[in-house]
Amino acid sequence: MPSAGSAWRGEQLTLLASQLHARQSAPEYADLIAAARQEWSENVSAPNQCERGRNLDLLEQDLGRQQALDPALVAALATAKAKGYNCWQQARRDSDFPAFAPALQSLIDLRQEQARQFNEPRSCWETLAQPFEPDLSLTRLNEVFAPLRQRLPELVARSTTAPRPRTAPWDLPDAVQQHLCNQLLSSWGRSEQITAVARSPHPFSITLGPRDYRITTRVVTGQPLSCFLATAHEWGHSLYEQGLPDQTHQWFAWPLGQATSMAVHESQSLFWENRVARSRAFAQTWWTSFRDAGAPLQRSEDLWTAMNPLAPGLNRVEADELSYGLHILIRTDLEIALLEQGLAVADLPSEWNRRYRDLLGVTPENDGEGCLQDVHWSEGLFGYFPSYLLGHLISAQLSEAMTAAIGAPEEHVAAGDVTPLLSWLREHVHPLGRALNAEQLVQQISGRPLDSTPFLTYLEAKLVALSDL
Amino acid sequence: MPSAGSAWRGEQLTLLASQLHARQSAPEYADLIAAARQEWSENVSAPNQCERGRNLDLLEQDLGRQQALDPALVAALATAKAKGYNCWQQARRDSDFPAFAPALQSLIDLRQEQARQFNEPRSCWETLAQPFEPDLSLTRLNEVFAPLRQRLPELVARSTTAPRPRTAPWDLPDAVQQHLCNQLLSSWGRSEQITAVARSPHPFSITLGPRDYRITTRVVTGQPLSCFLATAHEWGHSLYEQGLPDQTHQWFAWPLGQATSMAVHESQSLFWENRVARSRAFAQTWWTSFRDAGAPLQRSEDLWTAMNPLAPGLNRVEADELSYGLHILIRTDLEIALLEQGLAVADLPSEWNRRYRDLLGVTPENDGEGCLQDVHWSEGLFGYFPSYLLGHLISAQLSEAMTAAIGAPEEHVAAGDVTPLLSWLREHVHPLGRALNAEQLVQQISGRPLDSTPFLTYLEAKLVALSDL
Repeated sequence: MPSAGSAWRGEQLTLLASQLHARQSAPEYADLIAAARQEWSENVSAPNQCERGRNLDLLEQDLGRQQALDPALVAALATAKAKGYNCWQQARRDSDFPAFAPALQSLIDLRQEQARQFNEPRSCWETLAQPFEPDLSLTRLNEVFAPLRQRLPELVARSTTAPRPRTAPWDLPDAVQQHLCNQLLSSWGRSEQITAVARSPHPFSITLGPRDYRITTRVVTGQPLSCFLATAHEWGHSLYEQGLPDQTHQWFAWPLGQATSMAVHESQSLFWENRVARSRAFAQTWWTSFRDAGAPLQRSEDLWTAMNPLAPGLNRVEADELSYGLHILIRTDLEIALLEQGLAVADLPSEWNRRYRDLLGVTPENDGEGCLQDVHWSEGLFGYFPSYLLGHLISAQLSEAMTAAIGAPEEHVAAGDVTPLLSWLREHVHPLGRALNAEQLVQQISGRPLDSTPFLTYLEAKLVALSDL
Repeated sequence: MPSAGSAWRGEQLTLLASQLHARQSAPEYADLIAAARQEWSENVSAPNQCERGRNLDLLEQDLGRQQALDPALVAALATAKAKGYNCWQQARRDSDFPAFAPALQSLIDLRQEQARQFNEPRSCWETLAQPFEPDLSLTRLNEVFAPLRQRLPELVARSTTAPRPRTAPWDLPDAVQQHLCNQLLSSWGRSEQITAVARSPHPFSITLGPRDYRITTRVVTGQPLSCFLATAHEWGHSLYEQGLPDQTHQWFAWPLGQATSMAVHESQSLFWENRVARSRAFAQTWWTSFRDAGAPLQRSEDLWTAMNPLAPGLNRVEADELSYGLHILIRTDLEIALLEQGLAVADLPSEWNRRYRDLLGVTPENDGEGCLQDVHWSEGLFGYFPSYLLGHLISAQLSEAMTAAIGAPEEHVAAGDVTPLLSWLREHVHPLGRALNAEQLVQQISGRPLDSTPFLTYLEAKLVALSDL
């Protein structure tokens, strides 16, 4: 969109948000849900009674939330989001935080008001995090994250001092990268009839119909593995969607046909990206394909280390597996401070920089590579960041359960057949949809509550193995 | 879209078409228009009374058309279009016309029924052509096209025998082509604030808001000028949209703020592509930029001939200026025959091939490169093709008027400043919107009715000049 188009776009988005809210909170819609509940309660022995009840629970929950909101607030938020996003784009380009600060303050005010109107027995931040992580509490989040706060800085510090083989920078032509990505998806069972692959400035995965899945990637000059790993990542998202119980029209738009949380979604993309594609066994299987395609690799370890650069930096989306969690902890703490603890917007850059210095040992040169780097807050998206890190934790804990059940993912990768991995996910994770929330899902599959031990164990083992090369 | 997604997409498109039709034919909407007409008739001395009257005329015309349609037909057509498009994609790939024939038959039947329901004092084909060329009649079309039927085959035959310089095939890297396109748009006054440029499989121009214009292009391997000329073409479309009187919210969605016909739209894109970018003067100004960018050019004529390959072929979108009209005449005759003269769908391929042999001296090897090449009929789009050729005629006739007023476009191009060309279009063409239809616009600007002489004169002069090289 050209920059001058944003005002009109903002008006259109506001109109759509208002119309959507009007539909989702309409008395006619409420009557329909009430009638469905009545019918449900009169047919206790009907087939799928339990699933239908859960569907109704979730529909009623969302209806209640929509009914709680003042239409004027819905419109004001939509306008503020469009303005905030436009303002942020310019501010990031100019590295000018003060230019963005008023828009951010306005979004914080509106989101706080929104949380008040929801009027749930939760704190402001907790309330706003519900759409991404249903039922999540701050107490539980702090409990799960606590060991990470302690151990990650230490692991990151070790990674920077550990001796590591170095290869001269290399790259691969666009068409070659595309070919390798196609090869990857073929070997992972992509059906072209139901999954399209395209290019976009930022990779994403989207589902547009019961048999219409799409992923996008991009080729980044100088980063020959970026497109390949993004393909693995987005394919993991798409596999989750493809495995949801939404393959018929009847289920497609229903709660039980949807992903249960952003963290679970992320756990599925991270499984294929990190557990599979970044594994040593994968490099052993694939390094000759990369070598034959022109990559200057002498042995499988060259590909493995290239897949796993351990170098803490300022940028979240470019972060390695060790330091990624620290980026998330910083954002989580800061957005809670902004929403609940009175952190002044004007103090955000200095607080951001201080935490990066303390936890990662790096300091942004400007706010463009500092607190303006992410799009989320520019659209008032608070409560989303933890899902990324919870996704790492869930992926690790589910991988342990998978290992216990069918053997380690790496063994299957080494044997050249990932079908058993997908079959296991298709049986235990994907088909549940929103039947269970993220914590319940992890509990059911692994037999114990979510915690950070599997993730930290995995990280430490990988660090040791990479250091031992 | 993955192929399996088309059924769901078809349902969605059908739902949208039905809802749109319901709104556009709603009694409440009719009441609003009637009230506006009443208010208009009671305020004969109000400012802009004439423009407001024209706006109401056009709104009433469209309302009447929507009210004439049976909602069941609207839904059936939307479904048939989605099915037809999906079916055509596969049939074209397989070069299998019989696989597409039933879908085409169904679209013909539905469109004939639609024309009957419109119940206008026009033939079936004329009725269906109205949305693209308001007020067009078949009698007038035949009159305007008659000289082309006679002269174009002769010019095309001369072009194939005329001696022409030949250059070895060459190409330019993607980034270099992009740079040249940016240079072109800068020199033509593009504002990045209101116009975005992106890539897509097929180039197009679109307007999404009063200050949100976008064009797309593509780089075609082995065709180093394709992206450049597509940029010129789409920019011409965008300039027309940017010059329409739609820059305020009040006008944006109103008839007078819209393009008056597809032919006039095409005349604007063709003006910048053919009259400007494919001119000898343009090659003289630009050839060193191409040479410095790596094109193997020795002199300006090398660029000019590369911009103007005269080689009749089977493909419409790759056709040169001389043969393009013949592609359109063939399609126009055939769709009229299908809709009004009882041509059987099964006979379309043989009729198509016969006309290509007779008029262009080429014969398709299969229906994929023959009658399945265009998307239009797969979506029931009948009556659209003539607009492409009328666009050439209008561009030529307007160019003569422009030459009489401010001097030949080539002179301004040679002088290195195209601003006067744009200013003239901005004064005489763009701001009228739908105040005048295409014929009225040409009459008003050139002082005489549309005819094919200016276009044929231009073509002959170009052919002579290229042959004289």
